[in-house]
Amino acid sequence: MNASVTLQFGPSYTEVEIGQIRTLAVDRPLRLECGAEISNFPMAYQTIGALNAAKSNAVLLCHGLTGDQYVVGTQPVTGKPGWWENLVGAGKAIDTDKYFVICPNVLGGCMGSYGPKSINPATGKPFNLDFPVVTIRDMVRAQKLLVESFGVTRLLAAIGGSMGGMQVLEWAATYPDALACAIPISCAARHSPQNIAFHEIGRQAILADPDWCGGNYLNERKFPAKGLAVARMTAHVTYLSESGLQRKFGRSLQEREKLSFGFEADFQIESYLRHQGISFVERFDPNSYLYITRALDYFDMAADHGGELRNAFRECKAAFCVISFSSDWLFPTEEVKQVVHALSSSAADVSFFEIKSDKGHDAFLLDEPALANAVGGFLRKVEKEAGVV
Amino acid sequence: MNASVTLQFGPSYTEVEIGQIRTLAVDRPLRLECGAEISNFPMAYQTIGALNAAKSNAVLLCHGLTGDQYVVGTQPVTGKPGWWENLVGAGKAIDTDKYFVICPNVLGGCMGSYGPKSINPATGKPFNLDFPVVTIRDMVRAQKLLVESFGVTRLLAAIGGSMGGMQVLEWAATYPDALACAIPISCAARHSPQNIAFHEIGRQAILADPDWCGGNYLNERKFPAKGLAVARMTAHVTYLSESGLQRKFGRSLQEREKLSFGFEADFQIESYLRHQGISFVERFDPNSYLYITRALDYFDMAADHGGELRNAFRECKAAFCVISFSSDWLFPTEEVKQVVHALSSSAADVSFFEIKSDKGHDAFLLDEPALANAVGGFLRKVEKEAGVV
Repeated sequence: MNASVTLQFGPSYTEVEIGQIRTLAVDRPLRLECGAEISNFPMAYQTIGALNAAKSNAVLLCHGLTGDQYVVGTQPVTGKPGWWENLVGAGKAIDTDKYFVICPNVLGGCMGSYGPKSINPATGKPFNLDFPVVTIRDMVRAQKLLVESFGVTRLLAAIGGSMGGMQVLEWAATYPDALACAIPISCAARHSPQNIAFHEIGRQAILADPDWCGGNYLNERKFPAKGLAVARMTAHVTYLSESGLQRKFGRSLQEREKLSFGFEADFQIESYLRHQGISFVERFDPNSYLYITRALDYFDMAADHGGELRNAFRECKAAFCVISFSSDWLFPTEEVKQVVHALSSSAADVSFFEIKSDKGHDAFLLDEPALANAVGGFLRKVEKEAGVV
Repeated sequence: MNASVTLQFGPSYTEVEIGQIRTLAVDRPLRLECGAEISNFPMAYQTIGALNAAKSNAVLLCHGLTGDQYVVGTQPVTGKPGWWENLVGAGKAIDTDKYFVICPNVLGGCMGSYGPKSINPATGKPFNLDFPVVTIRDMVRAQKLLVESFGVTRLLAAIGGSMGGMQVLEWAATYPDALACAIPISCAARHSPQNIAFHEIGRQAILADPDWCGGNYLNERKFPAKGLAVARMTAHVTYLSESGLQRKFGRSLQEREKLSFGFEADFQIESYLRHQGISFVERFDPNSYLYITRALDYFDMAADHGGELRNAFRECKAAFCVISFSSDWLFPTEEVKQVVHALSSSAADVSFFEIKSDKGHDAFLLDEPALANAVGGFLRKVEKEAGVV
């Protein structure tokens, strides 16, 4: 069931080895929300720590839109540290001395899990746009197969931020008995029209790039780097906050004393954004970006439960710890609170923290001691009740 | 001094006649902030109403980023009504029975005024990126020449929203004796890093389009329509508000009952944005978009006055009426208030209105009776003091 594959990344088609991949849905296909069935599909993941004999210490970490399974350690494409080194590790809030951490790459992703750049067995070529459109629930149902492949029937916790938090909420709704606790961070139970709008801009930027080739750039050995960079720049601005930008950059100039009276990156914010765009294209697949943003746009838990969000959580026995950041305008506290209210009115055990920060949506990925305290404190309580430690 | 020219617009190179153009800086060149000098340059404009014998009833209207001189009447490219029909006309807040309204197309624009698509006499071809980078102050100094060409030395009012409001502030600072009153709407005295960021995304989208041809699309008979559309979509989202989007679109689907599980415009907000992008490219010049966004980014009145905004207005004798809209996040009320505080601390006569609206930055262009009341009421007071009526 374990394998490792070599994948190609970015406009330079750099080859990188991805370890820890399992083949799922071998005996029975997984039916997706769009109606398509998938079977024998790969899911790449990382585990840290050891599963205990009772199989009661498994913690699932769910990544955001452009995250991956490299929650700690070195991301093989970028060479940079994992995305949640602040929170995950021996003695840290998500303590790998005690927990068996599983972090999968989402269905539709590009770091080894089944996605648009996977090879279509029928053609021997990448699926590209023939890959089925997946939803957050599809991602979660695929993760459940991975979790079960370890013999785990009940997770100690599912934890994630942004799209990862949406997955956590969907876990609680779809598998109400399979979680001791759920920690959704910086997320809402639906994607707002403004968020859909920013995603649509990013998608249009990719589609506008002639090197996208109608989705078939891999076959053509091209790469829509410029379009993908613009998409990333657009999204990245929504991850920051006005006050944070003011503090970090203001109107400071980039390596110059005076305005250039031209179109170079005069301002630090311009240079920073360009860098964000350029570095992103080295590590992410443009079609995956289309698919995953679409999954986010489609996310609307209330609509999936007769228009009443609280119905989604009616059966759920998990304890919830919901966290927002004060300057996050992608998922503002007011919207996060709607999740808290729905949980409360479905009689769930729920704690809520709003953390003061000027770092916007990105704060959940940054070194925010208050986040580590909230997550760590909550897990300590839950692990005791669950008899893990 | 009057002329009319035929200009080409959009990817289809539709020809449209632009009337009312004056040639300025004939005797003496205008020195721009970048150091370049321009002379014998065209400025397109519209006038409504009649100048009185005392030449004391002239009102200058300054348009926003993608506006033009067609403040009322039919815009010749789009066939749509002028951008401020709600406010300007006989018996309206800006009453053309009483005032002589002048609305010029800005320097750097594409509706007949001197800009990147003007013909460079040295080459006989469009300037393209050889056009000098202009600033808000350059725009204002060119407007002053136009106003003087009517024999007007003192305006009854300068009025404008967004970039138009910035021009109004710059008028007050550069020509402190030349205004009886100033009405800057939905604007600040500097462009914030977040606003620069959104502009930079738009510029990168244009530059990423191979049909931009390094700025020389006019020579090549190409047109970066896709890049310009993405730029417009990005800007357009910043003109709306989260609550307005929620009310107007929510997550409603576009002409379908169910999600398509594809990349068509499933949601109304997607369809709306795509339409905004597509219709924009028919009427606007991509290089002008680069130049005018740059002028906005460069705008920082405090920096131009020793770091103290109030110094900008020290000499100004105009009465000010400053207006913001509650849901405008491009120029939030908090930032607009900094202008009000600077004016107050320079002992200016200043009124301030925040108008409640969920229509975001765009509100200043929409039918907002409170805006008409504020502008009309203020002008009635000023016209009496100025002895115009």
